Amino acid sequence: MKMEKAQIQQQICDAVEEARRQNPMAGSITNTVTINLVANAQLAVGGSAAMVYLPDEGEGLAAVGGATYLNMGTLFPVYAETIPRTARALHDADKPWVLDPVGIGIGALRTDLLKQMKAFKPSIIRANASEVIALADMWGLDAGKTPSQVRGVDSQDSVDAATNAAVALARWTGGAVAVSGEVDLVTDGTMIAHSHGGSSFMEKITGAGCSLGGVVAVYAAVAAPFIAALTATSIYNFAGARADAQVDAPASFQVAFLDNLYKASAADVAATPFEIEEA
Amino acid sequence: MKMEKAQIQQQICDAVEEARRQNPMAGSITNTVTINLVANAQLAVGGSAAMVYLPDEGEGLAAVGGATYLNMGTLFPVYAETIPRTARALHDADKPWVLDPVGIGIGALRTDLLKQMKAFKPSIIRANASEVIALADMWGLDAGKTPSQVRGVDSQDSVDAATNAAVALARWTGGAVAVSGEVDLVTDGTMIAHSHGGSSFMEKITGAGCSLGGVVAVYAAVAAPFIAALTATSIYNFAGARADAQVDAPASFQVAFLDNLYKASAADVAATPFEIEEA
Amino acid sequence: MKMEKAQIQQQICDAVEEARRQNPMAGSITNTVTINLVANAQLAVGGSAAMVYLPDEGEGLAAVGGATYLNMGTLFPVYAETIPRTARALHDADKPWVLDPVGIGIGALRTDLLKQMKAFKPSIIRANASEVIALADMWGLDAGKTPSQVRGVDSQDSVDAATNAAVALARWTGGAVAVSGEVDLVTDGTMIAHSHGGSSFMEKITGAGCSLGGVVAVYAAVAAPFIAALTATSIYNFAGARADAQVDAPASFQVAFLDNLYKASAADVAATPFEIEEA
Repeated sequence: MKMEKAQIQQQICDAVEEARRQNPMAGSITNTVTINLVANAQLAVGGSAAMVYLPDEGEGLAAVGGATYLNMGTLFPVYAETIPRTARALHDADKPWVLDPVGIGIGALRTDLLKQMKAFKPSIIRANASEVIALADMWGLDAGKTPSQVRGVDSQDSVDAATNAAVALARWTGGAVAVSGEVDLVTDGTMIAHSHGGSSFMEKITGAGCSLGGVVAVYAAVAAPFIAALTATSIYNFAGARADAQVDAPASFQVAFLDNLYKASAADVAATPFEIEEA
Repeated sequence: MKMEKAQIQQQICDAVEEARRQNPMAGSITNTVTINLVANAQLAVGGSAAMVYLPDEGEGLAAVGGATYLNMGTLFPVYAETIPRTARALHDADKPWVLDPVGIGIGALRTDLLKQMKAFKPSIIRANASEVIALADMWGLDAGKTPSQVRGVDSQDSVDAATNAAVALARWTGGAVAVSGEVDLVTDGTMIAHSHGGSSFMEKITGAGCSLGGVVAVYAAVAAPFIAALTATSIYNFAGARADAQVDAPASFQVAFLDNLYKASAADVAATPFEIEEA
Repeated sequence: MKMEKAQIQQQICDAVEEARRQNPMAGSITNTVTINLVANAQLAVGGSAAMVYLPDEGEGLAAVGGATYLNMGTLFPVYAETIPRTARALHDADKPWVLDPVGIGIGALRTDLLKQMKAFKPSIIRANASEVIALADMWGLDAGKTPSQVRGVDSQDSVDAATNAAVALARWTGGAVAVSGEVDLVTDGTMIAHSHGGSSFMEKITGAGCSLGGVVAVYAAVAAPFIAALTATSIYNFAGARADAQVDAPASFQVAFLDNLYKASAADVAATPFEIEEA
């Protein structure tokens, strides 16, 4: 489905307002490094947060949440059971969910889990460029075959280099993919949006990406995948740019960033610059 | 035991000062989402924090700590052993401890653990209204039977609706119950205090409730359960109200709130408004 | 190897600049209480952070990281396998790594793990005075036998009382030991540096010590152990003192401290006061 930019902006507006109005629950299974920031970012945009580790609790969250966020960071042994059961529950109930393949390439369990996720078709994949390329490769999607350069959890590839991989992933899942970078890319396999803003400080704090994934889940509870991903990306770019203008160091930036997430109006978010093109 | 308001205020004063003077150790088994805020809040009021997950470490903390905090969030498989052994150690040694039944209703392990906690009679139960109602119901205490409306970790019930349940729980444990809400309720089954203050931002950050539980444990190391619960509730209401007047967004609020916890004088805390009535 | 103070200061300068230039990856296995602060402090000084829990992931981090940080807080059952395998991988590959024996004395697993660490000779041990004394004692290093007074995770001993233990540990490992306290001590078994600065607020926030360990690891990726430990200690003393002058309460202090870590120039860090003497 193609849309005009003005239509998209209207839907972004609606998503921001609906999240504030409905206070949707968006549960997470996410890493211990940034779990607090994920929850606070979700609350700042109007969502409700809940985090679990156990298999039946993941299924429980899947059942009651408007959307769910599965982040592959700091895996525990129990994730071998928790992640597949939760993803299956989400898939079978046709509930929106967000996958963050952080750390792809590190360890056997993560590889095993990420391979399994292919069948459960995450509504939205949120990752940096290297992770998107690596995931498309792992899932055997022909994406032009730029080899990924993952190192730890940081991207070594440009967002542009991940365009084909992102489109291929979105076409496979039938959902959307959001690639975080200096200019962010969001695609549903048909359209590609490039979103501008943010701050260089977002790479100087831990969890900008993870918490964006959590916020995508909040919006996925009230909007379709492409709009949810673009709304979250836009509010991050808006709040990041505004915070950047207010502070000069990373810890102050994190505080100002969360404050601006909270303060951002629907009009602010919809006015965050982006361009649309065909995939 | 009934007390006059002035007596209670004097004991609140003493609790604030004793915590600062004694630097009591209040160990925790608590969730990964808000664990950092729990520790920092405990330090801000003069306590010493230590967090563990393993069974013998829980017993160790129980032995050396002045009081202990058991929070049911983000359960790991090892909690099946850790929580009962720690609670039993606390009960058998007649040491004060605080139970936070966060997430009650989510998952089989949490239900199993919370049922077991009945026999170990937590000195103080700290929860929101929905959780208090659900716990009284789970423990078979006739509390007027308002059905709980738990959804994830947020309360859907009013504090008033939880009064009977709170009183019933306090009578069962012989300790105190603190119900967090817009107006907070603290009861020992005989007296009911309503404490005022705080800020609407406390629901816009994650961990206001969890960290309150940790601070209750600090005061429980130096005061009786009812006074410990009311002192912690009062200092939260004082610091929350003061921070609310200083900032206009949630991340700034969290910083200002912790700062004000640290700066609060014993007189400030004792002067935080509350009313006392018979249960 | 003995060095003149000016030489040492030049090497501190170089370490600060190299960390900013190289963005070295310093992976961690660390506790859930302060894991976010560890990562943010590592980013603030120019490093790259990644945290894991599983055995093969620990080995993976050891292989790709410039240095690795192993912190014994909040042990999970899987650590029984993860910590020894990771430490062995680091030792066998002759990669620098930092041990933080936090919580020494609490629980059987921690004792077992810390005993095993003796053979893997951590490049740098970062701890408070009580922990350093307890570790030297556990490893059977004759250190003058001041009995340690560990209580939970806080030091009950003075840094001076830990001098012999620190020197003995450094001689055993052939690396360096950093003892945190009001005046910090860093030794390689030959030289002893005393570093000044910091803030009393560093004991009023959780994680000053843990995050220092993570920052030591960043510098250990670009400098020898003694210089890495002294550089990290110096930048902490510089940023702590500067933040102390800017704020009056602990949560504001944490924000200002991280901001000042980020802003500290190589010249600032090298100019942080220290004295050198022979061990």
